Amino acid sequence: MGKDITIYDIAKEVGLSPTTISRALNDHPAVNLKTKQRVSEVAGQMGYRTNLFASNLRRQHTHTIGVIVPRLNSPFMSTVISGMEKAATEGGYNLIISQSLETLQKEQANAKTMFDSRVDGLLVSLSYETDDLHHFEPFISRGIPVIFYDRVAEHEQCTSIVIDNLQAAYKATSHLVEQGCTNIMHITGNLKRNVYSDRLKGYKYALIDNNLPYNEQNIIVNNLSEEAGEEAAQQILKMKKLPDGLFVSNDTCAVSCVKTLKQAGISVPADVAVIGFNNDPICRVIEPNLTSVNYPGSEMGELAVKALILRLNGSTEGIASNTINLRSELIIRESSLKSKVAGKKWGQLAPK
Amino acid sequence: MGKDITIYDIAKEVGLSPTTISRALNDHPAVNLKTKQRVSEVAGQMGYRTNLFASNLRRQHTHTIGVIVPRLNSPFMSTVISGMEKAATEGGYNLIISQSLETLQKEQANAKTMFDSRVDGLLVSLSYETDDLHHFEPFISRGIPVIFYDRVAEHEQCTSIVIDNLQAAYKATSHLVEQGCTNIMHITGNLKRNVYSDRLKGYKYALIDNNLPYNEQNIIVNNLSEEAGEEAAQQILKMKKLPDGLFVSNDTCAVSCVKTLKQAGISVPADVAVIGFNNDPICRVIEPNLTSVNYPGSEMGELAVKALILRLNGSTEGIASNTINLRSELIIRESSLKSKVAGKKWGQLAPK
Repeated sequence: MGKDITIYDIAKEVGLSPTTISRALNDHPAVNLKTKQRVSEVAGQMGYRTNLFASNLRRQHTHTIGVIVPRLNSPFMSTVISGMEKAATEGGYNLIISQSLETLQKEQANAKTMFDSRVDGLLVSLSYETDDLHHFEPFISRGIPVIFYDRVAEHEQCTSIVIDNLQAAYKATSHLVEQGCTNIMHITGNLKRNVYSDRLKGYKYALIDNNLPYNEQNIIVNNLSEEAGEEAAQQILKMKKLPDGLFVSNDTCAVSCVKTLKQAGISVPADVAVIGFNNDPICRVIEPNLTSVNYPGSEMGELAVKALILRLNGSTEGIASNTINLRSELIIRESSLKSKVAGKKWGQLAPK
Repeated sequence: MGKDITIYDIAKEVGLSPTTISRALNDHPAVNLKTKQRVSEVAGQMGYRTNLFASNLRRQHTHTIGVIVPRLNSPFMSTVISGMEKAATEGGYNLIISQSLETLQKEQANAKTMFDSRVDGLLVSLSYETDDLHHFEPFISRGIPVIFYDRVAEHEQCTSIVIDNLQAAYKATSHLVEQGCTNIMHITGNLKRNVYSDRLKGYKYALIDNNLPYNEQNIIVNNLSEEAGEEAAQQILKMKKLPDGLFVSNDTCAVSCVKTLKQAGISVPADVAVIGFNNDPICRVIEPNLTSVNYPGSEMGELAVKALILRLNGSTEGIASNTINLRSELIIRESSLKSKVAGKKWGQLAPK
């Protein structure tokens, strides 16, 4: 293989200055369209590699990584960010973080701010609303890497880092079935996002594989906040037939459900077995302790930054445009153990 | 009062272009030292107001506010930031956030990143380690406002926004005394920071005013994490005489203490009455529910951004270089109500 083609080679070929070539390739307004077309054509013929170009010519490195999160107010996001900080510090980078607050408009504003702050790369977990990725194009077209984590989207030039949400939900639901539940409800977030739509699929497939009916009326979609958990529990309490199992897409909402159900005299897990998601510390504070899916947030954050730094250092092989799957795990605690509770009850009734 | 002096007035007086005057006043390398000295002298004689100057001439507005926090992993900081986002969105600003992780070195790096990102203003809650403010000088000397919140420091050109930590701790400790506690311990964070040193003072003064001895061995200083709470509880369990009251400087640590004490068979509040700080949602999840100081985090965040925007719009009167105090409040729940528990016990013993 020959030497990489540089803008100097193109400049010589086209008969213009390297600056003009660089500007032309970067779509700079000072260069006219005809020149841009010519330069682009010649660059293509000579086998000029745009990515390498963009990364070499990109504005000076700031050693800053931009992070866009939906909301900062969750223990899960805290663990993700602590993993990011760890890898960033090790790599000599600093993080700047902004919140989309679940709106596309704010995510767009964040992207612009990050771009103007000249971040070297961008890590994004998408808002509830996001349905196109145009606002990341200024990065991608300049070779500034964008990596999606947790709430991801398909983009041929972007890596996604996720857990297998479908499988995690499948396991959680199957565990409830094993505990004897036959009428399991699912509370989850906006189904536009992979994390929630995949969990719904996992819940559904587990029911079907266990010959239980899948009923859309057993699904509650809300914003998974503490308040939403209270409201969901109130809604459940009004049902003619209470569910005997409940799988909730985060722990904040699950804990608030358990609290409200308990206050109404419902016993967890004897009446309703409950499983959350994320394995937040609060799982070990609520009584009964909450069964949950352990989400390796810190590992995900670390990996996202490491993948980004690899890209910044020119290693794109094996990482770019792939999806990286992290392992999750069901942590079983009292809130879902109907059989154990039943056992205890039998034990208490039996003679000593 | 006359018209404000502008760089045009100075330019006329000195006989140089307004650009040169502006550069000279901004310490631009293209202007020689002699000219700088001359311009500075004339500007001073003419009563030129540097602050106004700096704010007018400052690099183009980015409509971005930088926020430096010690750590993002607390419900308290989440509420502060949600208040900031609210006011920022209303004012047409976007936030970028970074964490010092409690080290001076990282706080310095954050300040540099924020400066390079050309934020219009900076909101800072100081790290455990910070003992000088040099890293904020690049902002202050260019008239970019810096506002401290929660963990603050004295600086003649910076506003501080705080709650009255001394009074809040005084009230919490007094409440424990009212409940019959005579041997009260205090768990708190790094005493370099106003929030913790002021709470210690409040605790101490409440003891003294109630004729109870103040004993340094009753103070545990740690990082107020969940793990630190467990360790503190273990330490307490090893004491010859258990305390009958415990005032902890945050809820995370208080809850973890309560859990560990309960596991060891200690009854809260009957054996040890416990009070936390911040009024995080977890206070209403732990059993018994935790008495805590309600910290108006969201209000503080909102106010910090509003004060900053006022400064950016040229209103400095009544805000700059002042300390703004927000009201806090003791929220009494079961964890501290010894008298109520005692009452219940008596009631159970009494004939129906």
